[in-house]
Amino acid sequence: MIYMDRALELAENAIRNVSPNPPVGALVVNDGRVVGEGWTQPPGENHAEIVALNQAKQKAKGSILYITLEPCCFHGRTPPCVEAIVAAEVKEVHVSILDPNPKVNGEGLKFLRNSGIDVFVGEQAQIAGKLIEAYKKYIINQMPFVTVKYAMSLDGKIASKTKDSKWISSNESRLYVQKMRSSVDAIMVGANTVRKDNPYLTVRDEAGDPNTDQPLRIIVQGDGLIDSKSNILTQPGNVVIAMPESKIVYDLEKLGAQIEVIPQSNGKVDLVSLMHLLASKYEITNVLVEGGGKLVGALFDLNLVDKVAVFVSPIIIGGEQALTGVEGKGVDLVKNAFHLNDVEIIKLDRDFLIIGSVK
Amino acid sequence: MIYMDRALELAENAIRNVSPNPPVGALVVNDGRVVGEGWTQPPGENHAEIVALNQAKQKAKGSILYITLEPCCFHGRTPPCVEAIVAAEVKEVHVSILDPNPKVNGEGLKFLRNSGIDVFVGEQAQIAGKLIEAYKKYIINQMPFVTVKYAMSLDGKIASKTKDSKWISSNESRLYVQKMRSSVDAIMVGANTVRKDNPYLTVRDEAGDPNTDQPLRIIVQGDGLIDSKSNILTQPGNVVIAMPESKIVYDLEKLGAQIEVIPQSNGKVDLVSLMHLLASKYEITNVLVEGGGKLVGALFDLNLVDKVAVFVSPIIIGGEQALTGVEGKGVDLVKNAFHLNDVEIIKLDRDFLIIGSVK
Repeated sequence: MIYMDRALELAENAIRNVSPNPPVGALVVNDGRVVGEGWTQPPGENHAEIVALNQAKQKAKGSILYITLEPCCFHGRTPPCVEAIVAAEVKEVHVSILDPNPKVNGEGLKFLRNSGIDVFVGEQAQIAGKLIEAYKKYIINQMPFVTVKYAMSLDGKIASKTKDSKWISSNESRLYVQKMRSSVDAIMVGANTVRKDNPYLTVRDEAGDPNTDQPLRIIVQGDGLIDSKSNILTQPGNVVIAMPESKIVYDLEKLGAQIEVIPQSNGKVDLVSLMHLLASKYEITNVLVEGGGKLVGALFDLNLVDKVAVFVSPIIIGGEQALTGVEGKGVDLVKNAFHLNDVEIIKLDRDFLIIGSVK
Repeated sequence: MIYMDRALELAENAIRNVSPNPPVGALVVNDGRVVGEGWTQPPGENHAEIVALNQAKQKAKGSILYITLEPCCFHGRTPPCVEAIVAAEVKEVHVSILDPNPKVNGEGLKFLRNSGIDVFVGEQAQIAGKLIEAYKKYIINQMPFVTVKYAMSLDGKIASKTKDSKWISSNESRLYVQKMRSSVDAIMVGANTVRKDNPYLTVRDEAGDPNTDQPLRIIVQGDGLIDSKSNILTQPGNVVIAMPESKIVYDLEKLGAQIEVIPQSNGKVDLVSLMHLLASKYEITNVLVEGGGKLVGALFDLNLVDKVAVFVSPIIIGGEQALTGVEGKGVDLVKNAFHLNDVEIIKLDRDFLIIGSVK
């Protein structure tokens, strides 16, 4: 067994439930045997390494500890993990990557080394980095990691000229979207998309019923108001409507949503301010943007997109008036386009899901 | 060896050079040994089975003949092949598929059976059918088989808002386009694309020089006239400009292109009439349409497209004003979209080429 791989596997259990903390996995190995395993618990509860050390009990003494992320060295919601590691008399610590949090970022390892523990860094660093990509953006930029998702035809349309979009993607693709939603802190959508498609934007179980625990749903107010009976407002979980001051004409009593007044930029919600608010006030580390093209275009124009997931369906819709996934201003020249990295392709029934990170 | 597979392999040699005849391959097997091989020669010269029988000489007697397409039974540019097969005293004939030409379509096999030859049909019929898909459309509908090709970003743009498109696709994708061009009788493009991109639209050798033998280049006249110094007019091979009568204001002396006046449809070239003319006058069995979006959209609106080949590049261009691959009217509802069959995906450097047949 490659111990760091197992630690990474454990970390997967923590995804989404631990925000705004990073998902981390840890493994205590003594004399070649795994004597403790753990992953990050919800905020305020134990970090992964503490769970694993608690499980190992006395066997932590003289052991090797594998952690997917550098242990913390400051008093946050929990005491510093490095002190617990030293107290447990661990012999050797392997961490996959450093914690990008400026309060840690090497200081955790320095503490361990100064306490006489052998420290190794770098195993499976790429996978571990991917696991905390949202946390990294959040902690460094004080903004959520933004993934944009849309389903388009093979001629690049997300809706026909009559704004119809049901259904461009296959059933299997739509199930995959459920998986994507269940791994994020928030889902964002433009008000026009709410008006046009009246989506639920919920994580649902196999029977199609919404889970009680839902990502925050954020509606970005554009020109048109949404109906107080919109599906998105009737589901479990919270809804935030972000709007520039001038637009507040909702009957708030009826709405059942939180209104956030955001600074304006050309009469529209300033998306940079909104992102900062989502991070600071709501502790949102990652957000899945589900359209429409105007919102997604505006996010690209502001260089706010980190990842793209496009479901390409082998159909042709056609039409000069049909809608595309990324509108806004766009780039002037193709050589200035956003290039995607680490591109993956996944076949989902008849569709191709293409995922890439924005450089 | 599966003999019909070899015959299909031989047929590949005939692609493009034999239009408007179908590419066919033939194999003569005597006592388990291949004693003759052939493929269709240029129009007026020998058909595949005659080449193979000539090669087999006396060994054709008592042999098994494999042909990818039913042999002809009428006097065309050459005498009927079935007579030659009977004269050669072939014992058994295997054909993959019937000739869709109403002058043959089973009559060839009937002639052979009536002459006492054992006849078998259907081996590798799907591959053989694909090989003559263009011929089939041509011979039944008196129109060329239409393949549409474009390169788009992952947000469905074929050019930025400034009409820039250099280069959306990778070098490897552009080399693949050369292969596509070299297998068709004609390339079609809208006049706006000529004005905007000034393309050569030629088949070029490895050094980048144009071959002497080129597919016919067809320009569909839209609103704007093309420059008489356009690259497309300076290359080897012939150019046809298709226009409605009202648009003839070119200085024909200078142009070096053939003008075809086509009936109008709302002031524009009627594309159905153009397709019929290309088949009847120019014997064009297949045409590769290389844009722009208006021409491709109009072809879809008229249900004239048979195949789509889309190079998807993992870049995001964005822009409400950017151009898409299929414009025109488009469908009203997604459920009425054109669904693609037999979808293939080919990775070309960073691009994905997705090819499908229109239902």
